[in-house]
Amino acid sequence: MQVLRDHFEKIISLTDTEFSYISSFFRHRKVMKKQFILQEGDPVSHEYFVVKGCLKAYVLDSEDKTHILSFALADWWTSDYQALYTHTPSSIFLEAVVPTEIYYIAQEDKERLCAEMHKVEHFWRKKNAMGYVGLQRRILSMLTHNAKDRYEQLLQQYPALFQVVPKQDLAAFLGVSRETLSRLYSKKM
Amino acid sequence: MQVLRDHFEKIISLTDTEFSYISSFFRHRKVMKKQFILQEGDPVSHEYFVVKGCLKAYVLDSEDKTHILSFALADWWTSDYQALYTHTPSSIFLEAVVPTEIYYIAQEDKERLCAEMHKVEHFWRKKNAMGYVGLQRRILSMLTHNAKDRYEQLLQQYPALFQVVPKQDLAAFLGVSRETLSRLYSKKM
Repeated sequence: MQVLRDHFEKIISLTDTEFSYISSFFRHRKVMKKQFILQEGDPVSHEYFVVKGCLKAYVLDSEDKTHILSFALADWWTSDYQALYTHTPSSIFLEAVVPTEIYYIAQEDKERLCAEMHKVEHFWRKKNAMGYVGLQRRILSMLTHNAKDRYEQLLQQYPALFQVVPKQDLAAFLGVSRETLSRLYSKKM
Repeated sequence: MQVLRDHFEKIISLTDTEFSYISSFFRHRKVMKKQFILQEGDPVSHEYFVVKGCLKAYVLDSEDKTHILSFALADWWTSDYQALYTHTPSSIFLEAVVPTEIYYIAQEDKERLCAEMHKVEHFWRKKNAMGYVGLQRRILSMLTHNAKDRYEQLLQQYPALFQVVPKQDLAAFLGVSRETLSRLYSKKM
């Protein structure tokens, strides 16, 4: 659980007693490569924190083409947030890209912790705010940059992704064809 | 200030004394059509709540083409959040689309309110969470839908935008050309 404590303590400081209480709401799970945590239509009641590995959140369009909404590497949170907040079934697939280890917490327990401990509410407000900025940056990148620039931005911001994620997933995240991405890759070699 | 109180009370309940304290940190301003609240390079220290009207947040690319990151209609918050959180100069322009009325609060006062009043921190955590989901939905829409579908989604989700925002701004938000949008419009007529 130390990794989770370190993660919280990047934003708030916690006593042993406080962290012990917080961690009592988390459970641990190992997920094999290509194993699903969520599938489209599933009920969504948890949020997932990646200890190691990588989870991808994606949708399939009407032609069964994959579009990747997000990757979660170590130290990131993920879930189908829209489903979680609106109590609707999952509209995404959440799948392990590589063998992955997670901690997860039920949404009602997270809300309880936030209500009981002001500093935990502060922690999640800050995480949400940073997540919001990350998505805004991605939207700007999609609006203003071509495939080559988006690829290079991603490589610069998240080099770890390129160690872990297959090319076809990177293409599905960047919104470019596999062929376009291969051209960009080969120019880098 | 009643509109601001109503807005907070959609998520938290407040006594008169509490709201009076919160509102003491807000200031009011009227902005003319096409007037800037932020320009690229400006220091960013406030968050803006739209009472009526509409603000657009946009960037200009290297060819001076406009890309719209977001619109804020009545009851919405806006700012350059990346700049606000990282204490960097604005990378966006924030401009009134029509005559607009706002309340605004300094980031340090917002942080102070969040630290002093747990329920205010709760309010902003919830707002951030909803904002995050909105951006995720937009990214999915950009990845999975063509211009026509994105246009129709926007029309369905935010019909008020179409009353207020000129066609060229809608095109710059959807990431399509003015001509494509005009074709979509004419099909609706």
